[in-house]
Amino acid sequence: MLRRLKQILIGSPLETAALPEQRLGKLGALPILASDNLSSAAYATEEMLLAIAAGASVGLLLPPFYSIPLALAIGLLTLIVAISYGQTLHAYPTGGGAYTVAKENLGVAPALVAGSALLIDYVLTVSVSVAAGIAAITSAVPSLYDHRVGLSVLGVVLILFANLRGVRENAAVFAPPVYFFVISIYLLIGSALVRYFMGDVVAAPPPPAAPQMTWNFALIFLVLRSFASGCTAITGIEAVANGVRIFRPPASRNAAMTLYMMAAFLGTMFVGITVVCYLYGIQPISDGSETMLSQLGRTVFGTGPIYYAIQGATMAILILAANTSFADFPRLASVMAQDRFMPRQLANLGDRLVFSNGIVLLAVAASALIAIFDAQTHKLLPLYLVGVFTAITLSQAGMVIHWKRSREPGRGHRAVVNAVGAVLTGLVLIVIATVKFTHGAWIVIAAIPLLALACRRVRDHYYVVGRELSLMDYEKPEELRHTAVVPVPATPNKMVLAAIEYARSISKDVIAIHINRDGIDHEQLQQQWHNWTPDVPLVVLDSPYRAITQPLMRFIDEIHNWRDEDVVTVVIPEFVTGRWWHHFLHNQTTAFLKVALLFKPHVVVTSVPHHLRR
Amino acid sequence: MLRRLKQILIGSPLETAALPEQRLGKLGALPILASDNLSSAAYATEEMLLAIAAGASVGLLLPPFYSIPLALAIGLLTLIVAISYGQTLHAYPTGGGAYTVAKENLGVAPALVAGSALLIDYVLTVSVSVAAGIAAITSAVPSLYDHRVGLSVLGVVLILFANLRGVRENAAVFAPPVYFFVISIYLLIGSALVRYFMGDVVAAPPPPAAPQMTWNFALIFLVLRSFASGCTAITGIEAVANGVRIFRPPASRNAAMTLYMMAAFLGTMFVGITVVCYLYGIQPISDGSETMLSQLGRTVFGTGPIYYAIQGATMAILILAANTSFADFPRLASVMAQDRFMPRQLANLGDRLVFSNGIVLLAVAASALIAIFDAQTHKLLPLYLVGVFTAITLSQAGMVIHWKRSREPGRGHRAVVNAVGAVLTGLVLIVIATVKFTHGAWIVIAAIPLLALACRRVRDHYYVVGRELSLMDYEKPEELRHTAVVPVPATPNKMVLAAIEYARSISKDVIAIHINRDGIDHEQLQQQWHNWTPDVPLVVLDSPYRAITQPLMRFIDEIHNWRDEDVVTVVIPEFVTGRWWHHFLHNQTTAFLKVALLFKPHVVVTSVPHHLRR
Repeated sequence: MLRRLKQILIGSPLETAALPEQRLGKLGALPILASDNLSSAAYATEEMLLAIAAGASVGLLLPPFYSIPLALAIGLLTLIVAISYGQTLHAYPTGGGAYTVAKENLGVAPALVAGSALLIDYVLTVSVSVAAGIAAITSAVPSLYDHRVGLSVLGVVLILFANLRGVRENAAVFAPPVYFFVISIYLLIGSALVRYFMGDVVAAPPPPAAPQMTWNFALIFLVLRSFASGCTAITGIEAVANGVRIFRPPASRNAAMTLYMMAAFLGTMFVGITVVCYLYGIQPISDGSETMLSQLGRTVFGTGPIYYAIQGATMAILILAANTSFADFPRLASVMAQDRFMPRQLANLGDRLVFSNGIVLLAVAASALIAIFDAQTHKLLPLYLVGVFTAITLSQAGMVIHWKRSREPGRGHRAVVNAVGAVLTGLVLIVIATVKFTHGAWIVIAAIPLLALACRRVRDHYYVVGRELSLMDYEKPEELRHTAVVPVPATPNKMVLAAIEYARSISKDVIAIHINRDGIDHEQLQQQWHNWTPDVPLVVLDSPYRAITQPLMRFIDEIHNWRDEDVVTVVIPEFVTGRWWHHFLHNQTTAFLKVALLFKPHVVVTSVPHHLRR
Repeated sequence: MLRRLKQILIGSPLETAALPEQRLGKLGALPILASDNLSSAAYATEEMLLAIAAGASVGLLLPPFYSIPLALAIGLLTLIVAISYGQTLHAYPTGGGAYTVAKENLGVAPALVAGSALLIDYVLTVSVSVAAGIAAITSAVPSLYDHRVGLSVLGVVLILFANLRGVRENAAVFAPPVYFFVISIYLLIGSALVRYFMGDVVAAPPPPAAPQMTWNFALIFLVLRSFASGCTAITGIEAVANGVRIFRPPASRNAAMTLYMMAAFLGTMFVGITVVCYLYGIQPISDGSETMLSQLGRTVFGTGPIYYAIQGATMAILILAANTSFADFPRLASVMAQDRFMPRQLANLGDRLVFSNGIVLLAVAASALIAIFDAQTHKLLPLYLVGVFTAITLSQAGMVIHWKRSREPGRGHRAVVNAVGAVLTGLVLIVIATVKFTHGAWIVIAAIPLLALACRRVRDHYYVVGRELSLMDYEKPEELRHTAVVPVPATPNKMVLAAIEYARSISKDVIAIHINRDGIDHEQLQQQWHNWTPDVPLVVLDSPYRAITQPLMRFIDEIHNWRDEDVVTVVIPEFVTGRWWHHFLHNQTTAFLKVALLFKPHVVVTSVPHHLRR
């Protein structure tokens, strides 16, 4: 029944042989890999203006007009990073995520830092995007605001199942909303500009004129913080480089084209929204109850069908942005697992040829973050950027080394491009880590090295295990001799006699053991058993404190002392009940025994099940 | 380390031989068995007046003076029930709870109803008493009111550990607060009366005169409801009869004396508090933020040290009242488990000679109720009385039958006493079930038969199992033949070779099986293995959908078809890691396999552990 349910939700298993077909073209891959990046248009402007507004609340006034040069600077940065990443795609046609590039050029430690930063970032992407998507809905329908955590988790679960079904089906499901979002944002910007310049719409009155600005340290800090907040627009840009594998050949070329398309879409949408918001005097609402995009939509189109369509599209792309991470997190985790830095389960393909374990792990972690941060985007965002820019910076720095070592023509010029990217994103990283430190960035700054260290210890463990199991110095052992021990109750019954029969079939030395908790007379016990098993000696161990495990353990030690080389097989008769609740009606002693025995060397545990007919 | 912690919290294990010593005298047993009953003095008056006040809010006015005759009636009922129970003690010197009396005289079904009612009642006692005890504290320190659920659960946990340590230590810990409570209530009543009649204290103005009363159905219903609410005073009276076993001999005599002392204490305290509250015009506060006892204390003594001492004593005895249930619930559950109506684990004595499983079960259930009902006494109390009076009524009715069958002198007169008790408590039960039905009593009215039915099904299960395991028709089987199957990975390693060596030592037919998920060439696999295990055939099962369990299951079916009578032993090599987190670094396939194989008939599962050195 469970299998049937799984089949309905996830689909029938796919053969391993079907693997190579699951590849996508440019327009098919864009929605999957770009939705994270494109969707930041929905909140990047708001984040930037919120930082400016936060300054105003402590008396630091930055005229709203400053949002426009800041947006242009961020747009330029997007362009530089895209070009910089474009080079990576050509150098690493099989997929050049920050982890791979750092590993090949910078060494293991930077690679683990980059990998950890990316994994944390993917989890945050899911949390932030889903929370922001739900915010688009609660802006339109304020009565849902109190249910945002539940709705967000529901969103994560829906994406989880879509992803467990497999990649290709994603493209079919997810392409329409992404393109619809892009078109509707352009429509919004276009209409707003047209109506503004035609004087159709009475723009909101400009905010009161700021007093004379004096440039001081605090104000520079505020500008940097606004810039850092606006850099959320760049997030997700590395997704294409990590996901080259899902492109149809020629993979690098297709990936690069997709990357440039994405950067162009994002840059124009972000700058456009910022300009239009400035023209219409739209400001963020501090309690987060309505997004700026929602205000803009209402102002330009009124609260009508077009407004609702835009809100729907925004929610849809934000929910799908989370999907980018669902494509990339499991893939990166599996690459790291193949390098033995992650538990090997993460490298296993699931029924539908996706890395199911990684997908589930991501969904669980993201849901936890949503619950902890109350599904509030502005609480999650400060955590977000550190991981992104750590990975981008390391990736670009790795590329500089790559070109230095390479013999390709034009490597000098390429190294310069990547060096510019690395320096710029490195500077942005320092700014972000500084200005956002107390707002939550410290959590990620602490988490990245911890996770990297954990990865290292995982590999150490696998290395030790591999050496221990290696057959280098293997000598075939002499034939095993063993003693079988059967714990028995005070009076014989069918189940226990079956276990004793089994024990006799595997060993010549069978000992029945009764742990005497109730102070029963030994003579009487011996008689009761002798009738049924005359050839099996019964050992009675008194247990005045009613313990079960300790006396048995001591007895096994004695056997080991006595017959040096022997393996002791403990044969445990066990009930298998027909209904689940019957299980609770039988002593769980066997379960405790099995766990305790598992940790004892030279002991093998055998369960002889008795299947109850009813 | 875990064992060390357990020893600190619970104490060293006690020998079974130490059991008979853990018995108590009258003054030692009273705090343990009577605190439930005595503590009801802390809230019974308030419950009664709350019911009257609830009538006033819908226009049904009952003059406050009516509380006095109602209290006297309840006091009289207490006396009758105590005398009635006193007879039970003599007839059942080894402990005559409602369950035992009903089973011996009325049959299994009434016994299960009585037993279920009592078990539910004990859980409610813990919840109600702890919640009321915490209310005494939050009355004195209102800022704690919002933390009442957490504080209540903490209280339950403290009592849990006290009880896991054992009975005798309880008496030492718990006697002082109970006697201190009784003395301080008498002091409170006495001081209040003295100061009232000396005119020391200006009593609150009497409430506005009620209009002319007209007796109608609604008003009678109100009187009955107030009476029913006041009957909470009687709760806990059956504890002595259930707990005769813990008395030092002569047990029945000691128990009876304790019972009468308890009834006398309770009756005088309850009537006294009701009278004094009437004289001082103290009314319940509807939001439950301050108890009447707290108001009375403040009025008589002012908010000073004496007031705080009384509140402390009230809290202490209420917390300890819960303890009565911790003494009785596990004992009743173990009696029922010995009769096979409850899971047999509940009949096991723990390390400290108490029924630890029952104690833990009670604590968990009571904490759940506290959380569900938000630690509010007045929400829990309507659930409470149905169970109590069901048990009392059945117990008294059983005693009537007992005397009818008995040949003792004076049996006629004794039967009459019990009959009066049965009829009175039966009437009270009907009143309670009717007037409190919609307030929550329906939950218990539904739960009692369901639990009784479950008990019945538990015994049916044990009966079926007992018959199935019985050796009546046992025939010694022929010698078992078996095939050992070892699932192996693609490449040999030390751990797997050890499992194969073990398999060879228990069977002549050993088959290695590789589930081929990665489409490896069969020829290559055979070669890799042949070098290491030339005498063990390797069977390769292709698994294009990457499943593990199904191919193995199908193969076992084939063996069963092929070698009819054989047992198949599946030998599973298993990692035992040194650190707990290492466990997650290895595939959990073995765990899944073991569960799946457990449900397959004629299959024995053997784990051959490999203990990692690091």
